[in-house]
Amino acid sequence: MKKFINDPQQFVPEMLKGIALANPDTLRYVPEYNLIARADAPNPNKVTIIQGSGSGHEPAHVMTVGRGMLDGACPGDVFAAPPMDYVYETTKLLASPKGVLLLVNNYTGDRMAFDMAQEMSQADGLEVRTLFIDDDVSVQDSTYTVGRRGVAGNFFVMKAVGAAAENGADLDELIRIGEKVNSVTRTMGIALTACTPPAKGSPLFELGDDEIEIGVGIHGEPGRRRGTWAPANELMDVLMDAVVGDLPFESGDRVAVMINGLGGTPISELYLLYGIAHEALSQRGITVGRNYVGEYCTSLDMAGASLTLVRLDDEIEQLLAAPAEIAIRVF
Amino acid sequence: MKKFINDPQQFVPEMLKGIALANPDTLRYVPEYNLIARADAPNPNKVTIIQGSGSGHEPAHVMTVGRGMLDGACPGDVFAAPPMDYVYETTKLLASPKGVLLLVNNYTGDRMAFDMAQEMSQADGLEVRTLFIDDDVSVQDSTYTVGRRGVAGNFFVMKAVGAAAENGADLDELIRIGEKVNSVTRTMGIALTACTPPAKGSPLFELGDDEIEIGVGIHGEPGRRRGTWAPANELMDVLMDAVVGDLPFESGDRVAVMINGLGGTPISELYLLYGIAHEALSQRGITVGRNYVGEYCTSLDMAGASLTLVRLDDEIEQLLAAPAEIAIRVF
Repeated sequence: MKKFINDPQQFVPEMLKGIALANPDTLRYVPEYNLIARADAPNPNKVTIIQGSGSGHEPAHVMTVGRGMLDGACPGDVFAAPPMDYVYETTKLLASPKGVLLLVNNYTGDRMAFDMAQEMSQADGLEVRTLFIDDDVSVQDSTYTVGRRGVAGNFFVMKAVGAAAENGADLDELIRIGEKVNSVTRTMGIALTACTPPAKGSPLFELGDDEIEIGVGIHGEPGRRRGTWAPANELMDVLMDAVVGDLPFESGDRVAVMINGLGGTPISELYLLYGIAHEALSQRGITVGRNYVGEYCTSLDMAGASLTLVRLDDEIEQLLAAPAEIAIRVF
Repeated sequence: MKKFINDPQQFVPEMLKGIALANPDTLRYVPEYNLIARADAPNPNKVTIIQGSGSGHEPAHVMTVGRGMLDGACPGDVFAAPPMDYVYETTKLLASPKGVLLLVNNYTGDRMAFDMAQEMSQADGLEVRTLFIDDDVSVQDSTYTVGRRGVAGNFFVMKAVGAAAENGADLDELIRIGEKVNSVTRTMGIALTACTPPAKGSPLFELGDDEIEIGVGIHGEPGRRRGTWAPANELMDVLMDAVVGDLPFESGDRVAVMINGLGGTPISELYLLYGIAHEALSQRGITVGRNYVGEYCTSLDMAGASLTLVRLDDEIEQLLAAPAEIAIRVF
């Protein structure tokens, strides 16, 4: 295993320290709970938004903390749900009088941690609600879930409720918006290679020289089927048919499109995929209102990509277009 | 080779088409010359800034076209200098009455193409100047260069002259600023894996399971030496000693720091490296004024990273902080 790491057990804290050092004015780091928070959180004038999840999906979620996005993220170790007490302590530390919204991608481990933390926080008298995200169309139940998995489409829920919270929306309104965005968001991904967790030191699963995993989960868990490598046009057809057919998206729809890289795929290939997706949508009479090409939710160093579509209406489009500031930036 | 591609010969044009489709309001695509240009170029009130280089280094340079950055980029095929006529035609198409500045990373092939294009443009009566970037400290001469190579530090020259041009600076002033930034910018990189050019279909060079290339070039060309994998702290020591010692950077200096990913390394590892770099600089009495963590100049799917330092003064820091807009964005 050749990675830029020291002790594999310290991979997550050393990454978090780097994020904090790179953002001294805007972020606060609380090592006890793997917590990256906005320096100005809690803000009494807005609902606090927190997301956990395992590590290894960066920029999700520790690098999407900032104005108009998350107030805090308290990840677990690589591909492991955050311990319940991380979520509980983070909730207490960042609680606003307007309440706390917990965003959770639908995995059994994450649900357990967040459900327990919510109950304990509520017993303390805090107003806490939870919103589950389950945008992955590839499988109904899977290795780590009952029901569909939450994957890259999570970004759109975060962005929309983040913008609404910044505008002063209350907790009920955020739940309404988040559920609405989740209900019109669909994703599927393809892995070209496996990924290597630092503590394991070897690939999490085996893929042959010509094999790909269609509908892969963001922890490398199986999707719909193993397939054989095919040209990008054909792979995008598979993703597009699955994603469009699921909602379904229809001629006349206006959508946001995300081509998300899984960690090891260069941005050149992601833009190549975007061009194919854009034309495929045009042929179906679907208009692209907003596009997102890059890494939003990764699986460590996995080569692969996912396609997400969101059906836009004026409300969602305005929330997605609202300004936001996070750790990831070009300038 | 498992990549998201169709015909390897169409890799570059299909990527460029995707970039153009993703930025319909701000970019123009001229397929004949692999040209991505600002939709509003040429702007008679500013010097036009153009960069070529081979493809495979994205986001450099086709994704760094935009307000406050490049007016146009006309890349060659993967790891191949742009043909002279791409540069010549691009120069003519985007020429402003205030002149044209050509930015060129120092590689023999690129220099030839740009030198000839400059001569032909000047013969046409255009005012054209060229600025060479050579920030890589690893080797003095190399496979494709006489003199040092231009690598990720190129970003800072682009950003500074881009901002100054937006403010109305003339061609002489841009040359002064660009040469100044280049003179205080130093970079070195390490490859953990090779990269696979689409048309070749196999890794460009061989690295053993425990081997790394220290001082690697952005086309995978050899650097200072083959080494054995070591923990991130030790690898950063090697980079820091080489980069700091070269200018040299000294106690009391204020710097911009870039941890640049080479294409296949996840952003989690880049932030881990940033944390180490930040502390190493503090220990040397060097203050970090600005930081950049992500992919700026890649080598296709190569796993690896480079460290760039820029010695800041008020002028450079203001130019780096100026607003800019490019194809790569999170929101």
